[in-house]
Amino acid sequence: MREKRVLSVQSHVVAGYVGNKAASFPLQLLGWEVDAANTVEFSNHTVRSFHTRYGRWGGSKFDAAHLEDVFSALDANGLLRQSHLLTGYVPGADALNVVARTVDRLRSINPSLVYVLDPVMGDDGRIYVSESVIPIYKSLMPKATCATPNYFEAELLTDVKILDGASLKLALRTFHERYRIPNIIVSAVSLPIDELIKLGFAVDNSTTTRMLLCSGSTIVSAAEEPLRTVSFGIAFPELAEHYEGVGDVFSSLILGRFPDIANPPSHAISPLAHTAELAIASLQGILIKTRANALALAKHYPDAIVPREGESAEERVKRLRMVELKLVQSQQEILNPQVQYRAVAL
Amino acid sequence: MREKRVLSVQSHVVAGYVGNKAASFPLQLLGWEVDAANTVEFSNHTVRSFHTRYGRWGGSKFDAAHLEDVFSALDANGLLRQSHLLTGYVPGADALNVVARTVDRLRSINPSLVYVLDPVMGDDGRIYVSESVIPIYKSLMPKATCATPNYFEAELLTDVKILDGASLKLALRTFHERYRIPNIIVSAVSLPIDELIKLGFAVDNSTTTRMLLCSGSTIVSAAEEPLRTVSFGIAFPELAEHYEGVGDVFSSLILGRFPDIANPPSHAISPLAHTAELAIASLQGILIKTRANALALAKHYPDAIVPREGESAEERVKRLRMVELKLVQSQQEILNPQVQYRAVAL
Repeated sequence: MREKRVLSVQSHVVAGYVGNKAASFPLQLLGWEVDAANTVEFSNHTVRSFHTRYGRWGGSKFDAAHLEDVFSALDANGLLRQSHLLTGYVPGADALNVVARTVDRLRSINPSLVYVLDPVMGDDGRIYVSESVIPIYKSLMPKATCATPNYFEAELLTDVKILDGASLKLALRTFHERYRIPNIIVSAVSLPIDELIKLGFAVDNSTTTRMLLCSGSTIVSAAEEPLRTVSFGIAFPELAEHYEGVGDVFSSLILGRFPDIANPPSHAISPLAHTAELAIASLQGILIKTRANALALAKHYPDAIVPREGESAEERVKRLRMVELKLVQSQQEILNPQVQYRAVAL
Repeated sequence: MREKRVLSVQSHVVAGYVGNKAASFPLQLLGWEVDAANTVEFSNHTVRSFHTRYGRWGGSKFDAAHLEDVFSALDANGLLRQSHLLTGYVPGADALNVVARTVDRLRSINPSLVYVLDPVMGDDGRIYVSESVIPIYKSLMPKATCATPNYFEAELLTDVKILDGASLKLALRTFHERYRIPNIIVSAVSLPIDELIKLGFAVDNSTTTRMLLCSGSTIVSAAEEPLRTVSFGIAFPELAEHYEGVGDVFSSLILGRFPDIANPPSHAISPLAHTAELAIASLQGILIKTRANALALAKHYPDAIVPREGESAEERVKRLRMVELKLVQSQQEILNPQVQYRAVAL
């Protein structure tokens, strides 16, 4: 059996869980060798999400020359033989171009490389990287086995505004048509309840719980045939709190449980739907544990863990410490996810 | 219960297991939050051990200003509240001085801070850091709860040449007398078999297996009393191969299982002996798995995994890939160590 070894190119933070700090432990627990190349080294998360960030941070970004140096040395030592590649937050176009060349080099060494690309560009309608990276991400998409954008990144990459079930399906199809990427997962889209019902989800339309939809699609036609795809959606409840690093844990779980094409799991819709069900289940388990811990720290005062307009720096820092993911405490949730939210064919 | 959270200040490598790459996973598996501050970011291990290093590497050392920036930001965000501190390889005097100030700051915030200091300076009779760090390590020793030098570092710090049981016991005592450090563990000393027998170990003096001795000592007298200590040794077989990162995994396991003074484990000799027995047992389990994997990769040709005088760069690189620690595959060995080598009172 080929060694399970992933090169994970993401940020590093000392405290908290984003980037490689969020991805490494779940992957290692699932038995992966994780070669973690860090793109930044910060004290804490900061640049990712404007309404929740710590106001203060310290540390450095690595420049393109550092990354080039690291990847060249790995190559010279025969250490660029990973079976899988995961890329996340890469700050700036120069560094991302180094990553793009490394993808080519990895695939020339291992033609069956599985590459899960998380095109980290923004969230909630705002771009938090240099706009110069957008065309580079577009050029990376055809090299990937699967991409895991959030809804906003999916919109940037497809030019489809995702408002309802029809536009979501159009976005999924656009990924395949435009980039010939074989698999796509849009991590979470907030859709109105009646749209979910139209898509075939058994949700109660009197519910006040907001629901999120994770959706995905796989090309099943051969290269010379007209494009045929199989798509799915998984609806799950949205939490009022904001937990930093959830997207990074999600993409690591997608890679960690990515279908082995030599031995694909059986699933009524698709192997990718199976992967996504397990990833969502682990993540929900982690979030339940994290939320319970946060509420205990907040002395069971739920408002204290929800981001608030105009919160002071002290309030924000205190909240962020409380909502830090309980990743190391969720080993069973990562290893043995209990699937509660099932995929529905789209 | 106080949160188990360690600030771990060590090197980072993309591939392989030394420094924080070696320490983080075992600690996380044991339920610790690991705030990992990296002192270097290299492609692979290189600077630690001359006869085994990769000939080529890439990456950067972080300078003192970067570390200062990271620790200041953590402090400003209320993120310097760790219960434990672990320090390993810190390249150069300026960076180590930043670490020394951070120790003081951590202890001012948490007077019951447990600090495990691995004074990484050299091995096998050679210093591989700047000599200017030696006096700084000496000034750090009194701040530590426990230090985990190898035999060579113990000699540097005590000025005692460790040749036999008597000089080993003198070195242990010198640590307490000179630095008032409450706990000391010398990770491994190679002693002649007859010296081990004199120390009370039940080893067969016709054995051809070389044995290593892990030894430790704890102050049990009150501050105003004459110094009284309790010392132990654990003898275990030495392997012919050289595995990189063993010392870093060891110090992480010592911290991960360090006696809780509020609820110390019961042990015939001392709580520290209990900690060391478990750490040695986990490490032996990891090494057995690593060696079996290396032999399989070497097609069961044991000489291929032993360092050889005059090996070429290609041979060395190939060997180093084969002997990489099987850390993520040793979860049971880390979580449930089976103690085979017992502590003996010295």
